Amino acid sequence: MVLTYPHLFLASLECNRLHVVMKPIEGFGVAKVVDSGDPNFRPGDIVSGFTGWEEYSLIINTKDLRKIQQDDIPLSYHLGLLGMPGFTAYAGFYEVCSPKEGDHVFVSAASGAVGQIVGQLAKLRGCYVVGSAGTKEKVELLKNRLGFDDAFNYKEEKNLEGALKRYFPEGIDIYFENVGGSMLDAVLLNMRIHGRIAVCGMVSQHSYHDEEGIHNLFALITKRLRMQGFLQSDYLHLFPQFVEQVGAFYRQGKIVYIEDMSEGLESAPAALAGLFTGKNVGKQVVRVSRD
Amino acid sequence: MVLTYPHLFLASLECNRLHVVMKPIEGFGVAKVVDSGDPNFRPGDIVSGFTGWEEYSLIINTKDLRKIQQDDIPLSYHLGLLGMPGFTAYAGFYEVCSPKEGDHVFVSAASGAVGQIVGQLAKLRGCYVVGSAGTKEKVELLKNRLGFDDAFNYKEEKNLEGALKRYFPEGIDIYFENVGGSMLDAVLLNMRIHGRIAVCGMVSQHSYHDEEGIHNLFALITKRLRMQGFLQSDYLHLFPQFVEQVGAFYRQGKIVYIEDMSEGLESAPAALAGLFTGKNVGKQVVRVSRD
Repeated sequence: MVLTYPHLFLASLECNRLHVVMKPIEGFGVAKVVDSGDPNFRPGDIVSGFTGWEEYSLIINTKDLRKIQQDDIPLSYHLGLLGMPGFTAYAGFYEVCSPKEGDHVFVSAASGAVGQIVGQLAKLRGCYVVGSAGTKEKVELLKNRLGFDDAFNYKEEKNLEGALKRYFPEGIDIYFENVGGSMLDAVLLNMRIHGRIAVCGMVSQHSYHDEEGIHNLFALITKRLRMQGFLQSDYLHLFPQFVEQVGAFYRQGKIVYIEDMSEGLESAPAALAGLFTGKNVGKQVVRVSRD
Repeated sequence: MVLTYPHLFLASLECNRLHVVMKPIEGFGVAKVVDSGDPNFRPGDIVSGFTGWEEYSLIINTKDLRKIQQDDIPLSYHLGLLGMPGFTAYAGFYEVCSPKEGDHVFVSAASGAVGQIVGQLAKLRGCYVVGSAGTKEKVELLKNRLGFDDAFNYKEEKNLEGALKRYFPEGIDIYFENVGGSMLDAVLLNMRIHGRIAVCGMVSQHSYHDEEGIHNLFALITKRLRMQGFLQSDYLHLFPQFVEQVGAFYRQGKIVYIEDMSEGLESAPAALAGLFTGKNVGKQVVRVSRD
């Protein structure tokens, strides 16, 4: 049992939606231990893990709490760049996409918590990288701050298949799939032979049943594609290696991270709602306390 | 250039449909060489490869012709068990499905040219195997002659998801996909964590665009599935090993093969049409000559 005082609090929507009726809303947070009955944690320790939407949390299940070494990396980054989203990008890109130098990589929801890291890891691997996002501001971010080779606003494209053909005249080797639906159908038509599609954890919870349906799966055969779903939790043995490598990229200035921080617990509901309208830019976090 | 006298002739529909307007209908056949300008082939040699729907064929492109050693294996089996369908089953099962002893395997179109071999290879690998087919006769074949653990007629099932749950109460590890559509959607809901779906070459040409769409791809994520399309032509380096292994299985009585042979070139159009109504049982071949 650990009592934590949250520094920062992530509006971790997928989980919250499921839990909202059952118990106080949970989210992934970074917090300071105030008191502890678990010998692995002492007052003053900084931890990340599932905390409540509250100023103080009583954590019964301490086995999933992770201790954080405070250094030059902003604490909130342990919810994004060095947290679950970063690790999702890391595991998905390196373990599922089988990337090679020169591969043509497409990332949807590319300015999001996961997508922005996938794109940067792909650039560091020597790939050509294009991302899609839903606002002009996000597209500018992708091109000017996140180092993508190119980016486009999918809402401005009447013909997604044609748009992808413009950005990938020779086809796509790797698609990091965050959205499903008509984008996936358009991508299938633009994949290259022996391409890989990594299907990221986000989609499942936002759109449980795809009403429109996916129509172009025949491309899996004609182009001999591999489409693979994954969850970061299957790769936890790689977490220490991930923190070391991505932490080093950050310290060397090779990777940046964009987060959208709202202030105060009272801002959490609006931050949560903003995720569904695409209002946030980058990883959405809520600062509960500055202590 | 080789002039062949066909012994047997396969109604290889997918190709024929594409070529019918362009030139004389082609199909995969076994034939005897009558005369040859290619030093690799001599009169009397038995070969398999693309031949015409005709009694004598002039083969200009001889590089894809394969010489057959005549032995105790029926010549027509080089169009099925030891031909492209058998090799499709072999490459798909061993190279794409990552089979393990005890895996639960589901095969659709299971009595077809490819499916019947997949099921038997899976049994030889120590798997639990269930197949689906479209007539009572085919279901009986699967259970009584082809050694499947169980089989069902998909046309008699109102609820495919429920049917699969009956045959796979613990879920499916491997799905060998031959049909697409609502069967694929039902399978996705019944897959086990870390399951594999091998998407076989047949689907692409029968249903280029899936009108209804596939709705349950979220299962790729929640169950961390791998769905992979393949063509046997990517694995040709394994062909000699395939002929040796599957030939040995046949000689040892460990594998059987069911074909549906119609007599005479004039029977070819009806045999072709029968494939689309599910009339044929097993691999459809047309015997052009008994010489």
